[in-house]
Amino acid sequence: EIKAIVNDLHPSDIAFILESLPVVERQAVWQLVNAEHDADVLLEVDDWARESLIESMDHQDLVAATGTMDADEIADLAADLPPDVIAEVQKGLTDEERAQLIEAMGYPEDTVGAIMDFEMVRVRDDVSLEVVLRYLRRLHELPDHTDQIFVVDRQDKLLGTLALSRLLVSEPEVQVAQVMTTDYLALHPLDSDADAAGAFERYDLVSAPVVDDQGRLIGRVTIAEVVDVIQEDSQEQALSRAGLQEEDMFAPILDAMKNRGPWLLVNLCTASIASFVASRFEETVSHIVILAFLMSIVAGIGGNSGNQTMTMIIRAMAVGRISGANAWQLVRREASVTLLVGLCGSVITAGFARFISDSWAIAAVMMIAMIGNMLIGATLGVLIPILRDRFGKDPAMGSSVLLTFATDTLGFFLFLGLASVFLI
Amino acid sequence: EIKAIVNDLHPSDIAFILESLPVVERQAVWQLVNAEHDADVLLEVDDWARESLIESMDHQDLVAATGTMDADEIADLAADLPPDVIAEVQKGLTDEERAQLIEAMGYPEDTVGAIMDFEMVRVRDDVSLEVVLRYLRRLHELPDHTDQIFVVDRQDKLLGTLALSRLLVSEPEVQVAQVMTTDYLALHPLDSDADAAGAFERYDLVSAPVVDDQGRLIGRVTIAEVVDVIQEDSQEQALSRAGLQEEDMFAPILDAMKNRGPWLLVNLCTASIASFVASRFEETVSHIVILAFLMSIVAGIGGNSGNQTMTMIIRAMAVGRISGANAWQLVRREASVTLLVGLCGSVITAGFARFISDSWAIAAVMMIAMIGNMLIGATLGVLIPILRDRFGKDPAMGSSVLLTFATDTLGFFLFLGLASVFLI
Ligand SMILES: [Mg+2]
Ligand SMILES: [Mg+2]
Ligand SMILES: [Mg+2]
Ligand SMILES: [Mg+2]
Ligand SMILES: [Mg+2]
Ligand SMILES: [Mg+2]
Ligand SMILES: [Mg+2]
Ligand SMILES: [Mg+2]
Ligand SMILES: [Mg+2]
Ligand SMILES: [Mg+2]
Ligand SMILES: [Mg+2]
Ligand SMILES: [Mg+2]
Ligand SMILES: [Mg+2]
Repeated sequence: EIKAIVNDLHPSDIAFILESLPVVERQAVWQLVNAEHDADVLLEVDDWARESLIESMDHQDLVAATGTMDADEIADLAADLPPDVIAEVQKGLTDEERAQLIEAMGYPEDTVGAIMDFEMVRVRDDVSLEVVLRYLRRLHELPDHTDQIFVVDRQDKLLGTLALSRLLVSEPEVQVAQVMTTDYLALHPLDSDADAAGAFERYDLVSAPVVDDQGRLIGRVTIAEVVDVIQEDSQEQALSRAGLQEEDMFAPILDAMKNRGPWLLVNLCTASIASFVASRFEETVSHIVILAFLMSIVAGIGGNSGNQTMTMIIRAMAVGRISGANAWQLVRREASVTLLVGLCGSVITAGFARFISDSWAIAAVMMIAMIGNMLIGATLGVLIPILRDRFGKDPAMGSSVLLTFATDTLGFFLFLGLASVFLI
Repeated sequence: EIKAIVNDLHPSDIAFILESLPVVERQAVWQLVNAEHDADVLLEVDDWARESLIESMDHQDLVAATGTMDADEIADLAADLPPDVIAEVQKGLTDEERAQLIEAMGYPEDTVGAIMDFEMVRVRDDVSLEVVLRYLRRLHELPDHTDQIFVVDRQDKLLGTLALSRLLVSEPEVQVAQVMTTDYLALHPLDSDADAAGAFERYDLVSAPVVDDQGRLIGRVTIAEVVDVIQEDSQEQALSRAGLQEEDMFAPILDAMKNRGPWLLVNLCTASIASFVASRFEETVSHIVILAFLMSIVAGIGGNSGNQTMTMIIRAMAVGRISGANAWQLVRREASVTLLVGLCGSVITAGFARFISDSWAIAAVMMIAMIGNMLIGATLGVLIPILRDRFGKDPAMGSSVLLTFATDTLGFFLFLGLASVFLI
């Protein structure tokens, strides 16, 4: 009866359950899933879980499941499928589908081409809506998320779009050309998927046509894919801030170690370097031991404050609100805010330093070093994301490691340096 | 001519430009925007920027702009509008709209009720599609994002939904009851908006009906609102991790200080406490000064490692993949992974400690303290999010502060404590 329950669920819910199970149980439940759901579940399940499902299927199962998919869907799975399965499945495709499969496989990740599909309804602009309505009725089914159909000429050039709601409220005698929209947003297959998502969000779209350089309609992006892009990007970002990638909660421990090790190792090295820099002041610290306990406060607050600045800047950059023109203005603003916050905060810290050390001189050095290190943090908090953007590629995780490294090392250096000069 | 350029833009683009300008310029450009765009721009612009726009409008402008809005839209803006504007606008509403306004204003933030609208097409189940098509044509326009219409009985009880695409491909003679879907997802107005967003994502929805306890249709949620919820939640999360709220990049510096101060202050206090705890070992550190430079490595790596664990757990909880049943299993898994990563990492650290201190004993203490503190980090990385979830409410920012506080304090304590016992 478990089998009946599982197979009654929506394929997306089956995918969710499979993702929530350890590998052995996952494969056991997967055996219970009817073959008719195989394709939908494979497409819905997260990348890290798909592998273990495909592993447990034999050649015939895989060919059967993949055979029911659209060309763009096969392309999405191609990286995970055994080559002989793809070879066999593509034999069953029409020439047009095969061309689509090759096209879809050709676009790099994170582009519009990788998330578009080929299921579009095309009509001519010189027919009446009556004709369009009759044509649609003959299709028996419209592609998912069809909120508009596309008006093309004989060369497949996109002339306009016709919203279904417009089609429904207009008189049937009217020509398509009279009611179609020519003011539509068209995507290019090499546009970034994040930019496309931004356009969907800003203009509240459900689908958008994809056209090539000649203006020919080659595909369509739907909101369902866009929502997945938005979710994945925000998860990737959250994980990468801790130096992680998406991980199967039940994966072998060795895989988890590979996921976590590198970032911790980098942090260990930067911390060791910072500590080495500080140890150059062993002399000073051995004279005034209490400095040892205060220096970590100076380092920490610089990192925290710089992290706030960097978060604001990354956010502003993500929504396109930073240009060359206002970058300098931003640096000045961040510096002012940090200086003022630092001045207030440093009074408290100085009080603590005085309490713990019984020395006004130490309190003063503490105050100056703390404000100085916060300004270092603010400067780097602006510069690191801007430079990262300028030179592209460098992942978000690099930014926070670099920032902490700088505020730790320079924080120790500033505080112990000042102490060496003024207190010894 | 700037005026012409601005007014040619999509209202969402105007909103974006306004968000990107300092307050004075923002209000100047806002003066150039034609009154016809006022409503759309006010609705689209981010909360923090809206205030400055409303400030610069007089009573008449505001009444004119608000007067064209739907009840749910007025409700969204109600908090920002002067009471006399709302009082005047509601006089112009029909009884039904007034009831909708009151209803929409009544639902708490972050619920489905707060993002639903009231623009729905309702039909009976005992009419033919022919009749439905004629009815739609008489409407002249369908509400935004109408991908389905709702089938209700005389008491407004929701009986089913009819997808436009289904309507278009079916024969006109067929009855609504024969082609409507009864297997639809209905939301409740007090459901959380994040849960609704999860359902939209999982089932690839464009709109969903909202029904009350009696099963009566009271509203509708569309994907446009859901995308906004997803984006806002992910931004809030990213900002709150650095103890921030959304901030106007051009706001007065005092506002920015209010935004950043509290979190930095909390961090300053926890760092001071950790430093105070460490200073209880002044005696030990004054004997072996090099400990001062090693203790921050122990504290830092515990925090970094715990942060990885916590990020994984928060992510797994967000997608509902953690239950009481597997919590214990997770703790054990995290502990194993951390122990293994810690063992590898501590060899490197011990090497560094040996290099800097010339003492095998110090290296050994360093190794043990580091692994111990990483295990503390892993345990808290699992426990903090689970407890936070159990007792609700506590924001994400609290978690990272608490974790760092614990790994700093206990890291110092463990390392210096062990050193006091074994090295002195
Ligand atoms: Mg199966
Ligand atoms: Mg999924
Ligand atoms: Mg991506
Ligand atoms: Mg694809
Ligand atoms: Mg498809
Ligand atoms: Mg939007
Ligand atoms: Mg105006
Ligand atoms: Mg916006
Ligand atoms: Mg609305
Ligand atoms: Mg919210
Ligand atoms: Mg609302
Ligand atoms: Mg609306
Ligand atoms: Mg989806």
